[in-house]
Amino acid sequence: MSVTAAQGFTAAGIHAGVKEGDALDLALVASSSGPIAAAAVFTQSLTEAAPVTLSREHIADGRAHAVVLNSGCANAGTGVRGAAAAHAMAVAVGKALSTDPTNVVVCSTGAIGPELPVSLPDGATALVAALDTVNHTLAAEAILTTDTFTKEAVVKREGWVIGGMAKGAGMIRPNMATMLSVLTTDAVVSSDVLQSTLIASVRRTFNCLNIDGCQSTNDAVILMASGASGIAPDLDVFEAALATVCFSLARQMAEDAEGASRVVTLNVSGAANARDAHQLGMAVANSALVRCSFYGGDPNWGRVYGALGVAGVSLAANEVSIAYNGMTVAHGGGEAPFDRDSLLADLAEGEIIVDIVVGHGPGSASIVTTDLTPEYVTFNGEPS
Amino acid sequence: MSVTAAQGFTAAGIHAGVKEGDALDLALVASSSGPIAAAAVFTQSLTEAAPVTLSREHIADGRAHAVVLNSGCANAGTGVRGAAAAHAMAVAVGKALSTDPTNVVVCSTGAIGPELPVSLPDGATALVAALDTVNHTLAAEAILTTDTFTKEAVVKREGWVIGGMAKGAGMIRPNMATMLSVLTTDAVVSSDVLQSTLIASVRRTFNCLNIDGCQSTNDAVILMASGASGIAPDLDVFEAALATVCFSLARQMAEDAEGASRVVTLNVSGAANARDAHQLGMAVANSALVRCSFYGGDPNWGRVYGALGVAGVSLAANEVSIAYNGMTVAHGGGEAPFDRDSLLADLAEGEIIVDIVVGHGPGSASIVTTDLTPEYVTFNGEPS
Repeated sequence: MSVTAAQGFTAAGIHAGVKEGDALDLALVASSSGPIAAAAVFTQSLTEAAPVTLSREHIADGRAHAVVLNSGCANAGTGVRGAAAAHAMAVAVGKALSTDPTNVVVCSTGAIGPELPVSLPDGATALVAALDTVNHTLAAEAILTTDTFTKEAVVKREGWVIGGMAKGAGMIRPNMATMLSVLTTDAVVSSDVLQSTLIASVRRTFNCLNIDGCQSTNDAVILMASGASGIAPDLDVFEAALATVCFSLARQMAEDAEGASRVVTLNVSGAANARDAHQLGMAVANSALVRCSFYGGDPNWGRVYGALGVAGVSLAANEVSIAYNGMTVAHGGGEAPFDRDSLLADLAEGEIIVDIVVGHGPGSASIVTTDLTPEYVTFNGEPS
Repeated sequence: MSVTAAQGFTAAGIHAGVKEGDALDLALVASSSGPIAAAAVFTQSLTEAAPVTLSREHIADGRAHAVVLNSGCANAGTGVRGAAAAHAMAVAVGKALSTDPTNVVVCSTGAIGPELPVSLPDGATALVAALDTVNHTLAAEAILTTDTFTKEAVVKREGWVIGGMAKGAGMIRPNMATMLSVLTTDAVVSSDVLQSTLIASVRRTFNCLNIDGCQSTNDAVILMASGASGIAPDLDVFEAALATVCFSLARQMAEDAEGASRVVTLNVSGAANARDAHQLGMAVANSALVRCSFYGGDPNWGRVYGALGVAGVSLAANEVSIAYNGMTVAHGGGEAPFDRDSLLADLAEGEIIVDIVVGHGPGSASIVTTDLTPEYVTFNGEPS
């Protein structure tokens, strides 16, 4: 059910002329009871897209009525006309929903540079007419770009629900590059708490995903709370449930990463603090050489070791231990005896888990990444 | 002539049992007149290799007699035994040259993790016996790893010379990842000036090279001055000549980068200062998505624009202009009209020059990188 699993929400996904053929390219998630509490986390890019700039303003009051999202065009690098196009979309959806345009959050994803079709706002009427609780998967489909499957998740707790949908594929890194996600809940939560909870959940989930080291102009995660369940949950329980939904969506993005053949989890521990552990894990995930070795199923701990050394974090090289799928291949900063043939067989296919211990500190982090494949390069090398 | 072009130097390259077969794997560059003025720049990695740690100490007095370099094994991630192996190499070469071991600089390059053969120091006698002014190319060959050709350069000025050799291939990024270079001159220059001049030249050349965003455990650039010409050059002229040699070697590394099919120069201008321009250019060169587009000959300025936005440098998005091979494709933060067919034909093969103007400031930088290719991934994906 994803974004319509919680009471008080409807969704729609239609073709509105951005993508070729009749592919779905315009999605809407709307509150059934007018503007409600809402929160958002956006990209930190200084070349952020026009809809990001607009949506920051529209959600600044902690309330939203609906989120409209198009795929097939990022409306980024589009200057003044891009800003006008994003605004026109909010106006059209606001009119169709009989709500102020400032209650509409606008998201776009796709290629950077091209402009949105000027006729896109004309689709708002049909989009609003299509709103229904059963159309969540159409909405999830309408936000896809190079993704190969829709990404939805739901967590149910006593009397309340959190659901969500997301898209992502390449260009995914901390601060949520080229990913969009809309999350909804019927729990009773104030917008201030929504915002702080969302930031914490994003930090623990989406920001621990590093597909190709690239960040985007358009990232956005939007969370709306209808309060329709009438239940105000314990905030720790709420935050844990939200993180569960976000983690599921992040995980689905890794599985669907452009051209990737395997998901890799990097568990860093023993760092001075969680921030250092995160930075070390990200440095390993940023290394093209390391990610090539994942592709080949090569337990090339030397490349991991090399990446740790330049992560910008204080490190005692002789305390580093590295294990692949539970088999220790390096400790004390040097190679450990291990059964290479057995490990190569184990790494020949499927997921890889790399445990990296860097010392005796309390800091730990888990980073999800993928291998770097020839297919990724071919896919991203062709002129569009 | 490279490292023996300047008076007062001999060189040798032999097979000493690190690589398989009879491939050259041990090189020596030696002063003919005992310890002389010397300077070095090493990797900033916190997991630096044993020979780097040793060589920092040996060159701390600003003097060196010889540089011994092996390929085929980085002697990194080798703990206490690695330190002993590097020391043993210095002792053996020192004995063969009748000089104190602390006058010997030791460099290694190759895979991280494996240990050097314990018999390697036995090769020192044959290595010293092979020293000659004509053997510079054998020395340049003996330091290669995945390189496909030797890299040598010479600049002659009035009465004095600077020459050098280098190796590099993948894993090349600021701070000179996996590159080794030995430079020699017969100019009369003090070790203090050598050091400051070398730092400036490395910053302008090797550190502007970004092949795959990876830094190494073993990078080292060593510069020795024999003074045998008897001429103390103007320091600006000396620094310019040194930068010319370094730039030639850096350029050769880019041309020989693992799996790369084309060299790309990123000229960033209009930044607040040179440091910002360098950081912006490096962020573009670090982007896997951008480097895939170079592979495909795709003038995908949107990816460049996206990379600029997350470079960590203050930026006015609406002042960004981007040109490929002289043809402007974006200005004012948005797409510019351009002849796409003509540009695609121009970018179909060969070098690419991308001019990126980010504002009206005085800061500029040129970064040399390459495309990211399926061959790079395949090459680096296989278990060794």
